[in-house]
Amino acid sequence: MSVYESLKEEAWKANLEIPRQGLALYTWGNVSAWDNGRAVFAIKPSGVPYDELKAADMVVMDLEGTVVEGNLNPSSDEPTHRVLYREFASRGIRGIVHTHSTHATAWAQACRPIPLLGTTHADHMRTPVPCTPYLDADAVARDYERETGELIAQAFRNGIPGQCGSLDPAEIPMVLVGGHGPFTWGTSAMKAVYHAAVLEEMARIALLTESLNPLVKSLPDYIIEKHYLRKHGPGSYYGQKKKD
Amino acid sequence: MSVYESLKEEAWKANLEIPRQGLALYTWGNVSAWDNGRAVFAIKPSGVPYDELKAADMVVMDLEGTVVEGNLNPSSDEPTHRVLYREFASRGIRGIVHTHSTHATAWAQACRPIPLLGTTHADHMRTPVPCTPYLDADAVARDYERETGELIAQAFRNGIPGQCGSLDPAEIPMVLVGGHGPFTWGTSAMKAVYHAAVLEEMARIALLTESLNPLVKSLPDYIIEKHYLRKHGPGSYYGQKKKD
Amino acid sequence: MSVYESLKEEAWKANLEIPRQGLALYTWGNVSAWDNGRAVFAIKPSGVPYDELKAADMVVMDLEGTVVEGNLNPSSDEPTHRVLYREFASRGIRGIVHTHSTHATAWAQACRPIPLLGTTHADHMRTPVPCTPYLDADAVARDYERETGELIAQAFRNGIPGQCGSLDPAEIPMVLVGGHGPFTWGTSAMKAVYHAAVLEEMARIALLTESLNPLVKSLPDYIIEKHYLRKHGPGSYYGQKKKD
Amino acid sequence: MSVYESLKEEAWKANLEIPRQGLALYTWGNVSAWDNGRAVFAIKPSGVPYDELKAADMVVMDLEGTVVEGNLNPSSDEPTHRVLYREFASRGIRGIVHTHSTHATAWAQACRPIPLLGTTHADHMRTPVPCTPYLDADAVARDYERETGELIAQAFRNGIPGQCGSLDPAEIPMVLVGGHGPFTWGTSAMKAVYHAAVLEEMARIALLTESLNPLVKSLPDYIIEKHYLRKHGPGSYYGQKKKD
Repeated sequence: MSVYESLKEEAWKANLEIPRQGLALYTWGNVSAWDNGRAVFAIKPSGVPYDELKAADMVVMDLEGTVVEGNLNPSSDEPTHRVLYREFASRGIRGIVHTHSTHATAWAQACRPIPLLGTTHADHMRTPVPCTPYLDADAVARDYERETGELIAQAFRNGIPGQCGSLDPAEIPMVLVGGHGPFTWGTSAMKAVYHAAVLEEMARIALLTESLNPLVKSLPDYIIEKHYLRKHGPGSYYGQKKKD
Repeated sequence: MSVYESLKEEAWKANLEIPRQGLALYTWGNVSAWDNGRAVFAIKPSGVPYDELKAADMVVMDLEGTVVEGNLNPSSDEPTHRVLYREFASRGIRGIVHTHSTHATAWAQACRPIPLLGTTHADHMRTPVPCTPYLDADAVARDYERETGELIAQAFRNGIPGQCGSLDPAEIPMVLVGGHGPFTWGTSAMKAVYHAAVLEEMARIALLTESLNPLVKSLPDYIIEKHYLRKHGPGSYYGQKKKD
Repeated sequence: MSVYESLKEEAWKANLEIPRQGLALYTWGNVSAWDNGRAVFAIKPSGVPYDELKAADMVVMDLEGTVVEGNLNPSSDEPTHRVLYREFASRGIRGIVHTHSTHATAWAQACRPIPLLGTTHADHMRTPVPCTPYLDADAVARDYERETGELIAQAFRNGIPGQCGSLDPAEIPMVLVGGHGPFTWGTSAMKAVYHAAVLEEMARIALLTESLNPLVKSLPDYIIEKHYLRKHGPGSYYGQKKKD
Repeated sequence: MSVYESLKEEAWKANLEIPRQGLALYTWGNVSAWDNGRAVFAIKPSGVPYDELKAADMVVMDLEGTVVEGNLNPSSDEPTHRVLYREFASRGIRGIVHTHSTHATAWAQACRPIPLLGTTHADHMRTPVPCTPYLDADAVARDYERETGELIAQAFRNGIPGQCGSLDPAEIPMVLVGGHGPFTWGTSAMKAVYHAAVLEEMARIALLTESLNPLVKSLPDYIIEKHYLRKHGPGSYYGQKKKD
């Protein structure tokens, strides 16, 4: 038995959640799971329909892009995942998701960050959902998928001009890539899928909110803070606390 | 066997109706059921997925916020439920629901009451769906969830400036909290969920109606009255009357 | 065994198609089936959920509104059905449906006929979907449900000012009642439900079309005629012809 | 056993995918599969509901419109399929689909090509989705369904004035017919259905994108090229390559 069995199982189960949450057609989308001790991740193979997917199909890779285990080609987006684990693993990120979910992709195509208009959004993060600019022509010519990761990494390190300063991936679990679509992450692969589903719903509600009130303002800061801290940080009180 | 068995069963069944009606993702949303004789309510535990929920997981609480029975943490929204039972139980309210359902939340985020544009709405109430202002900073600092209840209670007691006068919770089974989302209630927990589903549909139809006719006027009063009284009050004639 | 067995069976099966096509929440909506020989119709009982409905629950009524068979109260909308059978049975109408389906109701609430913008619509009728004005206060005061039927009957007999001349219910199987919602009919109860589902889809596509092109014009007459006559009348060639 | 058994099986299975992907109500829509060796295609019979469809019901026809095998009437759209196979088979097309899917039909009714706004679209083609003008009155009078095929064939041969030059059906697997709806095709019947589902999703995301940003520009060419060539042509690297 492979030492990667449980990692592949985790990645597989999280991938199955993608169609269950209505986040992808056919083979679209991909989820990976990160093993921090071994510094490898398991990712969906490229172009395999979800209902044919088996745990054994997951491809295990290291940060240099070497396939450590697996017979299939990894998702063509694996270089993006790789860059994000390199950058974000130290912040506790253990799973990454990419989808083209309908409403999140519409915001990405509109090249607009998703404004923070209500507590549904504030329950998960304290800022708009950032949206990167288009990848530039040089970056696309070099290595498209890796540069997509670098674009996100740079946005979190340095901020996005006219939109936000530097961001902490442990606090902001999602981003839109302009003209493309969303990437999300979390402390597990399943949490990353959860964030993909939440993002899609936040994106949908925000679009409908704007259609009802084109002049709507951002939720006041004091409500944002309160809602976020209900669920995050030392004073959080949502859910069932683990007994020590 | 606990004396709260049937109350917990009622709350549990009504909670299961939430995902069945498409009103919540994952663990979002919560339903409680009120026992008027014992002055306690059973409520969903915090952060438990609907498909893992058991009747035994329901948390029974009194109006002081003491857990009377149950091993799990109650929904973090329980103080809101508590205030609403304190205020509304005398008007026959026996169940309360909170969701972030898509279209109702969009109206709440837009900070707009839902106008009464057709008989689908008038079948259930005779006024727009009221929308409270944002909770103010002091209230949030004091006790967020309790103050959310007080905000609603005050809106029903005193009205909402520029929107409506005082409201009777026995006649108006729903409210939007500005920047947040809907709360609904009813003469049973299941009726409260029914109102949550109706609200979501009313919110969706009203949004689409405005997009088709931005200048649409409210339904005439004489049709509102007629439709409401078909289903409510001594002269109502909808459904199967109980034999005496 | 009742002589109405097969009529009740037909009405029951057609009612079950309502939730299957996503046309109603809970107990909303109702379908009836007409027996032209006996001049009676079977209709859904009032306020009974679809998943509890049995063929034996259908209520059989005559054109005077007398219950001929059945123990339950008929749908509160039965007087509307009654007027429409009185008016339309001679034109071959054998089933009637009322729903509050989302998009059709939005057009009704916007008080707008649905313009004929494409062949999906022209496959089923050659005119916009007519929309009556609001029922007036006197009519509501007299007998709301019966007058709703009279409003529709009059619209088909005399036309709707500023919208259309007289209409043939054998050619136009649907109408919107302003501020309320759609009624549809057909040569069987199941065909009437088919028209309710088609109307909902036509209404949805037309709304989306207008959002893409607010200045869109009606489909040219020569395409309307062609598409309609593919499926209707002596020269029709859609489907499988019955062998003689 | 018929020599057309596997062709009919392929057409049947692809037809069943239509309702599974939510692309049609009732009997709407149709799929055909092309046998290039025998120069015949198998197509859905006219007006048969998907859940009653059997492989044996498929109608096999040649390019002259003669029924080679089958007892039922073919889809009334078969002359359109016939023209398209005549024109496109040499470009590797082996399956054709026609639907009235909601969002694609809305663009067709709006008489607008679908702009290329993101990578979801660019993964599948490098141009907007072309939209033909309405069929003219003479063509409709001659032979409606055949002329619909000719309209598409001509658009691909000569381009559409003010919209695009000539197009290669091997590269552009879909078209909108103005005022009507979409036709799609592919290297198999199932691939053609895949393109119908992709088109519907592209149409939906594009509509939402415009509502978020009415001034949105087309995706830059260098991203379009890159995304398209990831999945198409000799340098493509998406999916699992066949071992030689």
